[in-house]
Amino acid sequence: MEVAQILCMNKGGGETSYARNSSLQSKIISDSKRITEEAVESMITTFSNNNTTSVISIADLGCSSGPNTLLLVSDTLNLISSKCKRLGYPLPEVQVFLNDLFSNDFNYIFGSLPEFHRRLVVDNGGEVGPCFISGVPGSFYGRLFPKKSLNFVHSSSSLHWLSEVPEGLLEGEGKRRLNKGKLYISSTSPRSVVEAYGEQFKSDFGRFIKSRSEEMVSDGRMVLSLMGRKSMDPTTPDSCHHWELLAQALTTLASQGLVEEDKIDSFNAPYYAPCMEEVKEEIEKEGSFMVERFEAFEVEWDGFASEAEDGLKILTRGQRVAKTIRAVVETMLESHFGGHIIDALFQHYGTIVQHYLSNNRTKYTNLVVSFVKK
Amino acid sequence: MEVAQILCMNKGGGETSYARNSSLQSKIISDSKRITEEAVESMITTFSNNNTTSVISIADLGCSSGPNTLLLVSDTLNLISSKCKRLGYPLPEVQVFLNDLFSNDFNYIFGSLPEFHRRLVVDNGGEVGPCFISGVPGSFYGRLFPKKSLNFVHSSSSLHWLSEVPEGLLEGEGKRRLNKGKLYISSTSPRSVVEAYGEQFKSDFGRFIKSRSEEMVSDGRMVLSLMGRKSMDPTTPDSCHHWELLAQALTTLASQGLVEEDKIDSFNAPYYAPCMEEVKEEIEKEGSFMVERFEAFEVEWDGFASEAEDGLKILTRGQRVAKTIRAVVETMLESHFGGHIIDALFQHYGTIVQHYLSNNRTKYTNLVVSFVKK
Repeated sequence: MEVAQILCMNKGGGETSYARNSSLQSKIISDSKRITEEAVESMITTFSNNNTTSVISIADLGCSSGPNTLLLVSDTLNLISSKCKRLGYPLPEVQVFLNDLFSNDFNYIFGSLPEFHRRLVVDNGGEVGPCFISGVPGSFYGRLFPKKSLNFVHSSSSLHWLSEVPEGLLEGEGKRRLNKGKLYISSTSPRSVVEAYGEQFKSDFGRFIKSRSEEMVSDGRMVLSLMGRKSMDPTTPDSCHHWELLAQALTTLASQGLVEEDKIDSFNAPYYAPCMEEVKEEIEKEGSFMVERFEAFEVEWDGFASEAEDGLKILTRGQRVAKTIRAVVETMLESHFGGHIIDALFQHYGTIVQHYLSNNRTKYTNLVVSFVKK
Repeated sequence: MEVAQILCMNKGGGETSYARNSSLQSKIISDSKRITEEAVESMITTFSNNNTTSVISIADLGCSSGPNTLLLVSDTLNLISSKCKRLGYPLPEVQVFLNDLFSNDFNYIFGSLPEFHRRLVVDNGGEVGPCFISGVPGSFYGRLFPKKSLNFVHSSSSLHWLSEVPEGLLEGEGKRRLNKGKLYISSTSPRSVVEAYGEQFKSDFGRFIKSRSEEMVSDGRMVLSLMGRKSMDPTTPDSCHHWELLAQALTTLASQGLVEEDKIDSFNAPYYAPCMEEVKEEIEKEGSFMVERFEAFEVEWDGFASEAEDGLKILTRGQRVAKTIRAVVETMLESHFGGHIIDALFQHYGTIVQHYLSNNRTKYTNLVVSFVKK
């Protein structure tokens, strides 16, 4: 099954939906906000000085469908409006492209646009330029836009998803499983597994950078944030331990006869959390971007530091983490293992995570890179 | 209720869906094809001569969601590809904007794009330029795109839908019903009803033309096709008799106690079938377009001339017409009359239409206008 078909956040607005379990991704957008704002400010200055076209085009790649989808857009539009007013620039027309895979719930996003436009006008005291929003379905690992058409590109919590499970993970004719009992890189994974993942990331990220370099105007800005790691070692817990624990939960289900072991052996997540150096290497190799900022920051597994209320229920942090992960990977796991195991799997996963968190200090590392197109 | 919320073709792929009952609209696209192709050919020539940008932008306004949605796009892309190859022009990048109201099923369209792209490559023997397709939700009676950004605009079977039911149809404080027992202009409608409809069309079509004139590049082309009439008289049967018969069907339901008469009196369709002169007048008043062609052609009520098979069932022409109309107006009628009457209504409507067709020669008139932006 192609990743484009199974990488799909949980739809709708129910208890296990991405819409109700995306506070981690919201926290990441908020933590990157300073860097994003700086890039947008620079983009507006460049745009106003050049003045060759009358429209600013911005793209949010991997926008998903939920309460975070329009966060970047509204922040950017408010910033454009306030900066232009402050400096006496005319308000530009803004064209916004929201991108995600073909299976993303664009109807949900489009349904929320009338209210979004109303709020935008109110928030800016009526002084906001025309804003044209469209949805662009497709993989960002290829071209999505015409040449030299974008002034600002943004992507948050998306680029750690690979275009496909690395081919190298199934070895030879008989398809020997190389990563038995694991879902992602683990401290016990053979070297070939680590390398296959690293190569897939390089190839995908390289294609991403190449595509954007064709689509962006000179002096255009881009801010990317993705899961990563501080250490050069891909088996470091901050980049892979949440997969390790999910493999543990699956193994328990296998011991209860609920999952076949071979199913676990043959599943590998299309995911990669790179280190800064790997990201930099691909950018430098492509050559058409200048890195302005590169930061790594830590974020709690559930996006918050303490137990918090979710509707009427008080959930343990373990349960919150399980819900956050479930909203993102359920479709993928369902298509491989079948839907019957999902409830049991994530219940058990919540317990394992809760136990782990009570004994360990583990956070995700999020990388944020801000670029200028030469 | 706003028209934008209730003007929505029947979703999905079931028996009453628009997807399975849109052969009339497909016939109209096919009948207008010669004019559309001529406009596209001229647009390519102009584009290749000017060569100021590297991308051709085309917009299909009111694209809906069904088998017809991508017809215009594929025809246009094939034409661009074959003309460029024939004349030795480089294949341009093409950006396609599919527009319809916020409630349109864009997920359905986007889901069909991977197959669409594959077929496009096959149909053109691999020689097709990059094509970037996006969805633009919103009303075409306002701005949808940045200034001077479109090379070709197309709209088929959409512009006869008004932005709202004419306000003038409800008179004074007590909201006296002016169009009792009717759903649209009828031979017995008071003059004020006819005028209210005419004014609403002028205002809407005027805003459409004004918006497109801002969005299109100089020498850009536009082809519009919409329901209309040959006669200056708005009560002529070819423009309103399908509404007359639907009102008859509702009145029968009222006599059976299934519908309140007041409900019929208070419903007026947000629809208008203009004559050529009304269309021309608004274009001339706006002033920035030159009409290249203006044609009117007739089309059978069910899109075909004879009884035809629908899946396993042989339907009478009356039933086919009823299904064609139902797929388009069900959402609107449901929100006003309630869903419980729909099956009975369209069953009865099918019988009435069949009876009418056996005694009368009635066809729709479709207007096609081809413009150049000055």
